[in-house]
This record gives sequence, C-alpha cells and structure tokens, in this order.
Amino acid sequence: MTKRVYNFYAGPATLPLSALKKAQKELLDFKGTGMSLMEISHRSKEYAEVHTGASDLVRELMKIPDDYKILWLQGGASTQFYMIPLNLQQEGKPMEYVNTGAWSKKAIKEGGFFGDVKVVASSEDKNFSYIPKNIQFGDNAAFAHITANNTIYGTEFHNWPKVPAEVPLACDMSSNIMDKVVDPKQFGVIYAGAQKNIGPSGVTLVIVREDLLERVPENTPAMQKWKTHAAKDSLFNTGPCWAIYMCKLSLEHLKGLGGVNGIEKINREKAKLIYDLIDKSDGFFKGHAEVDSRSLMNVTFNLPTPELEEKCVKEAAQNGLIGLKGHRSVGGMRASIYNAMQIEGVQSLVNFLNKFQEDNQ
Amino acid sequence: MTKRVYNFYAGPATLPLSALKKAQKELLDFKGTGMSLMEISHRSKEYAEVHTGASDLVRELMKIPDDYKILWLQGGASTQFYMIPLNLQQEGKPMEYVNTGAWSKKAIKEGGFFGDVKVVASSEDKNFSYIPKNIQFGDNAAFAHITANNTIYGTEFHNWPKVPAEVPLACDMSSNIMDKVVDPKQFGVIYAGAQKNIGPSGVTLVIVREDLLERVPENTPAMQKWKTHAAKDSLFNTGPCWAIYMCKLSLEHLKGLGGVNGIEKINREKAKLIYDLIDKSDGFFKGHAEVDSRSLMNVTFNLPTPELEEKCVKEAAQNGLIGLKGHRSVGGMRASIYNAMQIEGVQSLVNFLNKFQEDNQ
Repeated sequence: MTKRVYNFYAGPATLPLSALKKAQKELLDFKGTGMSLMEISHRSKEYAEVHTGASDLVRELMKIPDDYKILWLQGGASTQFYMIPLNLQQEGKPMEYVNTGAWSKKAIKEGGFFGDVKVVASSEDKNFSYIPKNIQFGDNAAFAHITANNTIYGTEFHNWPKVPAEVPLACDMSSNIMDKVVDPKQFGVIYAGAQKNIGPSGVTLVIVREDLLERVPENTPAMQKWKTHAAKDSLFNTGPCWAIYMCKLSLEHLKGLGGVNGIEKINREKAKLIYDLIDKSDGFFKGHAEVDSRSLMNVTFNLPTPELEEKCVKEAAQNGLIGLKGHRSVGGMRASIYNAMQIEGVQSLVNFLNKFQEDNQ
Repeated sequence: MTKRVYNFYAGPATLPLSALKKAQKELLDFKGTGMSLMEISHRSKEYAEVHTGASDLVRELMKIPDDYKILWLQGGASTQFYMIPLNLQQEGKPMEYVNTGAWSKKAIKEGGFFGDVKVVASSEDKNFSYIPKNIQFGDNAAFAHITANNTIYGTEFHNWPKVPAEVPLACDMSSNIMDKVVDPKQFGVIYAGAQKNIGPSGVTLVIVREDLLERVPENTPAMQKWKTHAAKDSLFNTGPCWAIYMCKLSLEHLKGLGGVNGIEKINREKAKLIYDLIDKSDGFFKGHAEVDSRSLMNVTFNLPTPELEEKCVKEAAQNGLIGLKGHRSVGGMRASIYNAMQIEGVQSLVNFLNKFQEDNQ
C-alpha cells in the first residue's frame, strides 16, 4: 500500500492523486503504443493529442478568448521576467511595476536590462504584508506588471488594479493560476510556472494577447520571442512533453471538480479553515498578511517563539503534514494549499494546530 | 502484461526499461516520503540527492575534470544556440562555425545576433552527407563550434578538429552524448538536449569550463548567463526536477552496462549490424552518409523508390518497429539507435529489412 502524506510545500507542490495514478498506469505503455509518453516523438499524433489537449483545457477552464495564444515554454517565471520587458518594450516608454515581494523584485531587476523601469507602488515598507491600494499606472507605460500572489509573504491581489486602456497588464500568476475565476481580458499577458497549481516543474504557461506578439525587436534570438513559439504552437523545438502531459492530467482533475468555479469555492473554504484558526487563537498564531490581502494559496503565520515554530514544524511532519516551514524572509510557518490540496489535508492541519496550541500554550 | 515495441524515433527516443520501471514504481511514493518526486520541493534533501546524483554520474561517466561545471538547464539546444555566442563572445573576434546540417545552421543563425560569424567549413554542397576534413579555425576566433552528430543526415564526427590553443571548442552533442569515449578536455563547452541519449525531453545538459563563465557581459538577464546557473548548481530557480531524475535513472542504467566504454562497444556493434546490411544489399538499401562519416546513432538510408520506402516504414510499424520514417530533408528511412536501444531491437530491424528486401526486390 502506498502511504501518502499531506504535502504543504510551496512548490513543487502536491498534485492530484488521480493524475499521478494515471501517469503511473500509463508510464510504460502510453495508450497502447508500447512506449512511454517520454519516449514518443513530439511530432507524433499521440503527443499532439496531449499537447493540444492541455492547451484546450486551459482555454476552456480559464475562458481564454480566441485572440489570446496559449504557450507552453521552458525556463520558469524567471525566464519570463526578461521575456516580458524584451517582448513588450516600446521605445521611450517606461515599464511600470508593482513591488509586492521577492518575485516582483526579481521581475523588476530583469526589466532594468531593457529600459526605464518605474515602481509605481510597493509594500516593502511593511515587509510585504499587504497589497497596495489605489495603484496608478501611467497612460504612457509600455506595460504594467504585477505579481498576483506572493508565495513567500502570503498576500494576494483580490481586486485587479485599473490600467489605462492602451497599457497591457502583465501578471505573474505562478502561485495562484486558476485558484479563482479571473477575467482574462483584463490582462495582456498571464504567465505561471506550472509547479504550484497546475502541474510539475519544468514548464511555464504563458497566455498572451496576439497583437502583443508583434512588439519584439526583429534582431532577437528565436527562443526569446513569444512570436516564435506562438507561430509553431509551442513546437518550435522539442518541449517538456512529460510536464505538459502532467498539466493535462491535473487540469482534467480540476475540470472534474467543477472547473475554476468549483475550485474557487473549495479554495475559499480551505483558506477560511486556517485563517479562522489563526483569528481564534488569541494571538498564539499570528498571520503575517493583513486581513484584506490574505492569500488563498499560501497561509503565512508565526508562533510565540522561534523554538515553538521549530517544534510545531517538526511535530507536524511526524504527523504526516509536510513542508510547513516558513520562508526565511518571514520566518514561522507557511501552509501552501494549492488547487491539488484536498480539504481533508487542511482539516488535518487545523486539527493538529489546535492540539498543538492546547499542548504548548 | 505491458507490450513494448522497438522505438527508433529520432527524439524524444527510447529510454532504458529499467529506468522506466523504477520511475513507475516510485511515482506515488518517492523513497518512502509519501510524495511523488514531482511533488517534492527542489530545496528538499530528497531532491538534492537526485540532483547531485545526476551530476555526479555525468562527471564519473564522462570523466569530467574538476574545472568544468555541470549544468542542468531548460530550453533545449535551441536555447544554447544563443547562449553559446552570448556567453563566449569577445569584442572584435569572429565566432567560427562548421556547418554540417540543419542544426548547425540554426546555431549559426543565432550566433549572428551577437557579432561576426564565420563558417569555416560546410558539407552543404552534398546535402550534408559527410563531415568536412582539415577544418581550420582561426587563432583569433572567440570560439569554434561544431555539431558532433547530425540527426537528420546521419553523419558524425569521428575525429575532432584541431582548434588553436586559446580558442574554446563548443560542441552540440544533443544526438550523440555518451555514445563513445570522448576526452572532455578538448572542449570548452559541451551541450546536449537530454531527449535522445540520456533522458527525456525538458532538460539540457551543459558542461562548461569554469574560466569561460566570466566572459558574459555584465548587463545580461540572469537566466541567460551560464554563470548564474553555475553559481547556484543549477538551482537558481526551480528546475525540471522530473527530467533530471529520469536522466539519473538512465545514467545508472548506462553505468550498469560498463559506462561509456561499455556502451561504445555496444553502439559500434549495433551500427555495424545495420551498415553491413546496407552494404550487402546490392544497392537495395542505399546509405545517405559517406562511409567514413557514418553516425553510430542515426542510420539514414533510402530504398529504390519512395513507394517502397513508405511500404517499408508501414510494415515495420506493423512488426513493432516504430519511428523509421526519414526526415523530409533526406527522405527514405532513418533508424535512431541511441544508447537505450538494445541490440535485440537492431537485430529485429535487420531481420525485418532482410526479409523486406527478399519480398520486394
């Protein structure tokens, strides 16, 4: 019998058991081909079904309009940090960013290689414990950039900032893609490393409005241009076939839960369970994020002392609750409760934390 | 029971059955963690063992000296096509390439974005059916570049060109890495998409001499610099963990066969079986590559008519011999017999082709 734990890692993160089981079953013989999916040509009809199947599911689940391209790229969000400014830059126009944490800062730094960067809002003054309000982007910006969810600090945009009509909004959704219903038409570009919410590591989903593909300078290496990949449906070169396959299986699971609508309800329920525990703990558990900026995906909190935090992480692991140590920037604990985390896992964690408080108060 | 075919795809390509079986067995519970390898943090000690284990195997099997770094990157050889010139360029010095086929041409094209490119030798005059001899690189070159094996045309370097002492040789070994013993000290950089000889798609092995890491211009995005990845042992950002894990399992299999020494003997035996068939077929099968340039990895050949070629590919598939259609640039048939192809598979193919000739001559 396979023992499974509840895995609260921030990413790579837990995957749906149904997806893993299907992958295991098909591993030596993909759909009667006598080959593993890993061994099949990326130009074969068998792989083509996986590839377009994954893209079709993204389009269906997120209701992506026809004038957006769906790309499966390599290199993680860290690669998009330079592909965004490279592909969206416009001569003489500033690139405008909101700084809500470590990943925003990395994106901002890479922007600096391509032109004038302007940080229009930041929550660094309070160790990124909130999402800035009343963000104002300039009419003249080449693009606006935000990080939708901040894995390390446990904050999340719940209202999208207004952006001038001509300015495309680029959004890093690496840690909350498909956690809730979003209108994609508000964005010029959405991108996300798959390894938190929709699959394993090794593939990055990029959703980009077609008209934006034309901005990139001509004298740019092929792999750096979204346009190259859009023209070849992400088959310009050999892609990360297995990772895309795992995304497809994970998205099928998500569809079975009622799609993004369905998972949003579950995610809100899961998050509420932990935040209620925090709020009712008389200060034993103290959330890092301000209440109206709390993330549905990463719940960050501290205990009265670092010693208790260490003890709590250790005892949780002994109880099959894994990956709860907070990031060093915040300390304490972090429960990452992405789409594939079942409500039973969160309930287990809450029960454990309740008991831990009783025993250690 | 799992039915397995013999898979002659050019890449993604066949993997060792032992590696696939181990991956299948561990898929739901990696080494008693209660998690899949795909679900485990890339910063965990369990993943660290996989990551350094894969690198250590590369170093051991290829006898890589200590002053070379072993990197696991994303984006395929196509990404290295621009990272090579970007990371090795030197003001005022030409970048010198040998053109032995479609992939060389792509590398040359990307080089052009970074400075003066000089093609010092080419076999395009005879549809890339040979490897040029007496190649002369200039003393003043920033670097020299060759494609070690040409998947499409079925040619392979059997003697490495001489390169002036100060000029690093960059070599694309995507389709023949570890097919035979190579002295790594002859190279400044060796790179290879994993999906032909050492693993699945989604990861690229780059082996680079340390002193070459310092050439890259300072104002370069982080992900584009080998230096970034070398400094963090390829953990600057979340890597393609599953693909690296599969490489590790494949390399363990290779080690079990006697390492590169062992596989070279097997590869020469496999290639000889098919080339002997071609040479003894009285012209029914006609090899594309000139005899002294024949690849150990990709055997390209034509039949008397396109109709017979089509029939042969189709009947082969009916006999469990998959992926034998040649690339459109050469036509005919191609048998890719990478490290993971067992000699039994090649013997099966040879038996089939012999019978096909008898029946169709």
